[in-house]
Amino acid sequence: MVERGSGIAIWRQIGEQLAQDIRGRLYAPGERLPPEPELAAKFAVNRHTIRRAMSELEQSGLVRIEQGRGTFVHEHAIDYTIGKRTRFSENLLSQGMRGHFEVMGGQSVRSAEIARHLGLSRTASVLRVQALGKADNRCIDVSEHYLDERRFPGFIEQLRKSRSISRAYAHYGVADYMRKWSRITAALPSADTARLLGQPKTRPILQVEALSVDSAGAPLQYSVTRFAGDLVQLLVSDDAT
Amino acid sequence: MVERGSGIAIWRQIGEQLAQDIRGRLYAPGERLPPEPELAAKFAVNRHTIRRAMSELEQSGLVRIEQGRGTFVHEHAIDYTIGKRTRFSENLLSQGMRGHFEVMGGQSVRSAEIARHLGLSRTASVLRVQALGKADNRCIDVSEHYLDERRFPGFIEQLRKSRSISRAYAHYGVADYMRKWSRITAALPSADTARLLGQPKTRPILQVEALSVDSAGAPLQYSVTRFAGDLVQLLVSDDAT
Repeated sequence: MVERGSGIAIWRQIGEQLAQDIRGRLYAPGERLPPEPELAAKFAVNRHTIRRAMSELEQSGLVRIEQGRGTFVHEHAIDYTIGKRTRFSENLLSQGMRGHFEVMGGQSVRSAEIARHLGLSRTASVLRVQALGKADNRCIDVSEHYLDERRFPGFIEQLRKSRSISRAYAHYGVADYMRKWSRITAALPSADTARLLGQPKTRPILQVEALSVDSAGAPLQYSVTRFAGDLVQLLVSDDAT
Repeated sequence: MVERGSGIAIWRQIGEQLAQDIRGRLYAPGERLPPEPELAAKFAVNRHTIRRAMSELEQSGLVRIEQGRGTFVHEHAIDYTIGKRTRFSENLLSQGMRGHFEVMGGQSVRSAEIARHLGLSRTASVLRVQALGKADNRCIDVSEHYLDERRFPGFIEQLRKSRSISRAYAHYGVADYMRKWSRITAALPSADTARLLGQPKTRPILQVEALSVDSAGAPLQYSVTRFAGDLVQLLVSDDAT
């Protein structure tokens, strides 16, 4: 399993092996890894080498080391459902958390691409809303939402008041809306995004680009949301779609 | 926009601003960024400063610089659909690529967690298949698949022959299967995974954990797939689910 004289330090080889077992789910999220002496015996190395491997795993976010209790496989605390009905606060409520939406700013912008998504003329200006998604007051996402500013005058104020996108739309008579598609990518956060999410710049985030339509099927909102990668996992489920 | 004497180098501030505009989709994937002289004028800096900012963006994978043609926003080449019917080769065919499945190895393993997903007894041993997913011979994912080894004797050989999971199952009379759920996380790859995917260790990957069931609703396969983050974006669509 571990190869001496291969030019790769033994602790690094062990770290890689354990990382593979964790990523391949041989150890489940939340599960405690075998204790140091057991791992030391398994790999035929001393405990110091195991400790160094564990410290690497902790830095890469795969495990957390709890003094006196052991080393646990990292759990993504929040299962965020992506489907036809994707609602921020309902999603968090199902996880036992209170979610709200905090508006950071809004301005008119022009982008041919975004206008196209919204079915507007190429040169139409659209409203960009910048917001934070909070779960029990912990910031879990940073988002931008684009919508037709002529259809929703005073939208920012409505959003500030209601702290919920669906309640803000309801004010304009949009009682329901659906997610048409979501595109998910992995990225490293910009310095600003990392700061807002309270995570290191070296930890990846999940970026979700999405289009929502109203009940008549007309484009309503185009969004880009960046979720804290250590906290959130996206769930696409049979039941939810 | 750009603040002098803030302790953050001007090129870094410009890079951050452009990164935000790209992530917020003000510049669309594949779009050419404004030429250097235009950006230099916009930010009131010299072209050297713009070039340094662009080089940062290129390193973080947000843009590619084509000599003589300009700087283009990075496109994720492959839209990989996640839904009830998630099929590797059909997904790639819809993108104009030929997909196949390359078996790297298989062995019996025991994991209470994986047995639980498959509805087997805690101590049952399961077959683990390690594979590469290839699109036009370019490796786009590294995966592990777990299944009941007693239900599918000789599965590895079937897989090697057919180079397709669905064809291998068909051999055992499993004509159809569905994706019950998928859980998506962002992660940094291990050294081995990065090597197999042909990408730097510093670029995030998309990791998809999934459970498939047969047409009777019984658990068939539990998988963990790691997609090259620079190449693949996951698409959850209204039509596909």
